[in-house]
Amino acid sequence: MAKPSLQIIPIGGFGEIGKNMTAFQYGDEAIIVDTGIMFPEGDMLGIDYIIPDFHYLMDNPGLKIKGIIITHGHEDHTGAIQHVMSNFHAPVYATPLTRGLLEVKLKQARLLDKVELVTFKAGDTLKLGVFSVETFHVCHSIPDGVGLGIKTPVGIVVHTGDFKFDHTPVDNWPPDFAKLAELSSRGVLALMSDSTNADRPGWTPSERVIDAAFDTVFRDAPGRIMIATFASLISRIQQVAEAAQRYGRKLGVAGHTMSENIKMAMNLGYLQLPPDLLISLDEVKKHNPKEVVIVMTGTQGEPSAALSRLAMGRHNQLSILPNDTIIMSSHPIPGNEELVHRIINRLFQRGANVIYDPIAAVHVSGHASQEEQKLMINLIRPKYFIPVHGELRHLKQHALLAEQVGIPKERIAVVENGTIISFDHKGDMTIGERLPGGYVFVDGSGVGNVGMAIMRDREILARDGVVVVNVSVDRHTQQVVGEPDILSRGFVSTRDANDLLDTAKQTVRKVVNQNVYANGRKHELVQEALNRLFYNETKRHPIIFAFINPV
Amino acid sequence: MAKPSLQIIPIGGFGEIGKNMTAFQYGDEAIIVDTGIMFPEGDMLGIDYIIPDFHYLMDNPGLKIKGIIITHGHEDHTGAIQHVMSNFHAPVYATPLTRGLLEVKLKQARLLDKVELVTFKAGDTLKLGVFSVETFHVCHSIPDGVGLGIKTPVGIVVHTGDFKFDHTPVDNWPPDFAKLAELSSRGVLALMSDSTNADRPGWTPSERVIDAAFDTVFRDAPGRIMIATFASLISRIQQVAEAAQRYGRKLGVAGHTMSENIKMAMNLGYLQLPPDLLISLDEVKKHNPKEVVIVMTGTQGEPSAALSRLAMGRHNQLSILPNDTIIMSSHPIPGNEELVHRIINRLFQRGANVIYDPIAAVHVSGHASQEEQKLMINLIRPKYFIPVHGELRHLKQHALLAEQVGIPKERIAVVENGTIISFDHKGDMTIGERLPGGYVFVDGSGVGNVGMAIMRDREILARDGVVVVNVSVDRHTQQVVGEPDILSRGFVSTRDANDLLDTAKQTVRKVVNQNVYANGRKHELVQEALNRLFYNETKRHPIIFAFINPV
Repeated sequence: MAKPSLQIIPIGGFGEIGKNMTAFQYGDEAIIVDTGIMFPEGDMLGIDYIIPDFHYLMDNPGLKIKGIIITHGHEDHTGAIQHVMSNFHAPVYATPLTRGLLEVKLKQARLLDKVELVTFKAGDTLKLGVFSVETFHVCHSIPDGVGLGIKTPVGIVVHTGDFKFDHTPVDNWPPDFAKLAELSSRGVLALMSDSTNADRPGWTPSERVIDAAFDTVFRDAPGRIMIATFASLISRIQQVAEAAQRYGRKLGVAGHTMSENIKMAMNLGYLQLPPDLLISLDEVKKHNPKEVVIVMTGTQGEPSAALSRLAMGRHNQLSILPNDTIIMSSHPIPGNEELVHRIINRLFQRGANVIYDPIAAVHVSGHASQEEQKLMINLIRPKYFIPVHGELRHLKQHALLAEQVGIPKERIAVVENGTIISFDHKGDMTIGERLPGGYVFVDGSGVGNVGMAIMRDREILARDGVVVVNVSVDRHTQQVVGEPDILSRGFVSTRDANDLLDTAKQTVRKVVNQNVYANGRKHELVQEALNRLFYNETKRHPIIFAFINPV
Repeated sequence: MAKPSLQIIPIGGFGEIGKNMTAFQYGDEAIIVDTGIMFPEGDMLGIDYIIPDFHYLMDNPGLKIKGIIITHGHEDHTGAIQHVMSNFHAPVYATPLTRGLLEVKLKQARLLDKVELVTFKAGDTLKLGVFSVETFHVCHSIPDGVGLGIKTPVGIVVHTGDFKFDHTPVDNWPPDFAKLAELSSRGVLALMSDSTNADRPGWTPSERVIDAAFDTVFRDAPGRIMIATFASLISRIQQVAEAAQRYGRKLGVAGHTMSENIKMAMNLGYLQLPPDLLISLDEVKKHNPKEVVIVMTGTQGEPSAALSRLAMGRHNQLSILPNDTIIMSSHPIPGNEELVHRIINRLFQRGANVIYDPIAAVHVSGHASQEEQKLMINLIRPKYFIPVHGELRHLKQHALLAEQVGIPKERIAVVENGTIISFDHKGDMTIGERLPGGYVFVDGSGVGNVGMAIMRDREILARDGVVVVNVSVDRHTQQVVGEPDILSRGFVSTRDANDLLDTAKQTVRKVVNQNVYANGRKHELVQEALNRLFYNETKRHPIIFAFINPV
């Protein structure tokens, strides 16, 4: 019998490829890397989030999942953990901080005591069936991230996770260059590398550049300073705390998640704060405004987060004062720009000064730019290159960079989610067909039951609204009895539409009375006639329901 | 009687201030600058566009509108012309190219023969009642744009229009520095200046940098080149034509608006093309792919534009070939990023190579950056400074720049749309109250009749859909007759929801049968019960209509 091939399957999510979930399979054994979610795009109406479609793994009951490895603690790598763990039994491997963040999620999903969580430290090797996974530290916009050197029966596959080459990270823990060199010296079959910033020339700046920007703001701020950032961006909170100490300010924390994350990170040693630095929001009011800094969440415009509530004047403990300085220490995630800019405008309207990139360098990306991506390829010198983590346009660009540093074009695999990439024992690569499916919408408590047909209906409803008609007909004469009832929502304002609805009632009466023998089809005739009328009068096409009731 | 004051009213549109329309009023005479539209933000569901709320001018029947001046031909300065001209009788002043673009709009609105259009050339002075408007050439991302030196009885107000200081523009017509200096030497009361890029440090690059980027792409492209840009960006089309000539390619044009604009710009002399350069799309197919360039619209993801249809494989004359190179010579307008990136991904998927900023400098902004904004203030040295054209955050930033170059803070007016800024004969400024209103939604043929209540309903419909219930009750026993009818759209897929709809029917039957004496309120009880049921089962809150029909 021929030996099996190694199969790599980017299960992914929406838009980005190989980002949220990837399976490595050899014979009847497999490991999973990451279990993340994607956030919906603007036209995915009503969708809460999107999870990878892992039916392929479920349809393979003989498959033994030997372990699930989470590379770091961001939502797009952890957020689907409860959905995955409701379907598979396998131990979950994570570094201490990532494990802490996973525990919060599993607790909320009442799955904490059902899942076997295993802590490892960057540098540890995990033995998972035929796979031996050598982990190594990488820098990213959350501490304790890892990349993976996956030893398989056909060779070593290096998976970078999300990374940047930061030589001066806030936690003074640079990427593990030695391990990358060591893996390279043993010969790497394939490199899977983070493509997020493949269209950005140069190097991503070190997190350290933010210290200088903070210094300028802290020096000049005439009153309180409020800094909004991601609750998981522990290193940024460390930088805020250090700036607060340099300028003699105390640190307040607004928001539950932010407080919980700070507590956990302090307990685990990822955050070093002097004991008297933190103060409660009540204590904030007792200090001179020039002596406080407040960290909070809400940089993406989330309506329930502290920053949005401040912008709307609806925070129960804080409000904007004229000399407040607000730092947006983040970039809007694509699609959130309008919302974020609206909040910035509101904060200005309330009298605050708001500092954001590009006004000052108060945020940097957590992903490698082109020169770092080329460095990664040159450090590893893989036989094959598989760009992952990015939209197709980023992968294509990353592939061009790989060609520039000497990887032959035919050894670069730019694929979409669901495509199986196989490596045999001769070290040859085959790109297979794409599996059906791709991602699953989560809407309220529904997982996967909202599809494209519903999406299309929601689009029409959103654009033009709905009209409902109820009319009684005499069961003998087939003539309308009484007045047709017409209600609408999202279509026209009742104030302006009296004439239109009167005309609509006459239309209904006429269509019903004139089509005496159209039993069972009258409601369709009414719908068609109203559709024409409404379009002529308003250039809109609402969804129309008509009921004909014999009495 | 005291002499009147000059009143400046930024009528504006949505989000940006003083951008789309501004009124200058002295006594009973007024002039209007620009009549533009704004495009809706992502959560303004179903809205086509937004026009400024000019009720204030209509409510003032004694007011004599002496003229309407259009600074340049972009939609956000021209798009509301038909709405304004349906309400006011006044001559409209425009430079030749701007007039050409206005004529197309007025023709479509069947208003061309009702409007008095007056052509002027940059440098001309327009006498409009008490106002004397000295026009001057500015550079922007459309040719033939002007700024205005408005001589009023209280002093000179300079309005920059949209501008950048391009020393090497494609049409070799730099901004009129001499006129700016001359206005300054006479003493300027107030400067109203373009704030769009107030958060961008440095200088906006000249349009000329695009030539170099085009050279690189044209040199390396292995097949056809397609360039997507704005139909009004005549200077970019000139650059494409020049690059085509340099590299021995013929120029095809896809799309009606693009063709019409090219024809008009050639007739008016704003576009210089050698007679044999242009070929039809049919001829394109007869040429070697390396010998053609095609310009088209669709850079904002507009579904009906040539680029979108190519990306979807639905263009009736063109399709993507493997060696095609596509240049996106534009930036996505804020809010369009997702759509534009999706189209880029699709084009890659079909085998094209897509070049966009930041991969290469194939587009530059048409607006001044910080150093240019400071230069404008220093050239004009106004007594007062009024930042306009931008969101509040841009105006605040522009105000900071003005302070840096020495304008005292108390002489800077950062206001929102509808705020009246008055200047008296002593040269003192007063900032008045904000007028009610602000902007008007246009939806289909409806202008201003879609308000916030409809918007909220559309939001609910978009998120959770609609459910309609129709149930017959015996008029004597008040018990349900037959089966309740339940229909839904955008809520749950019928395939998955059979159980849920069965439960819903039982709920309806129970509620109706148990509330025999609740006449006139039964439909509300049904709606409430279903609302609870649906939320428990799906965590969604669809809009519910229930009809109870006595039979």
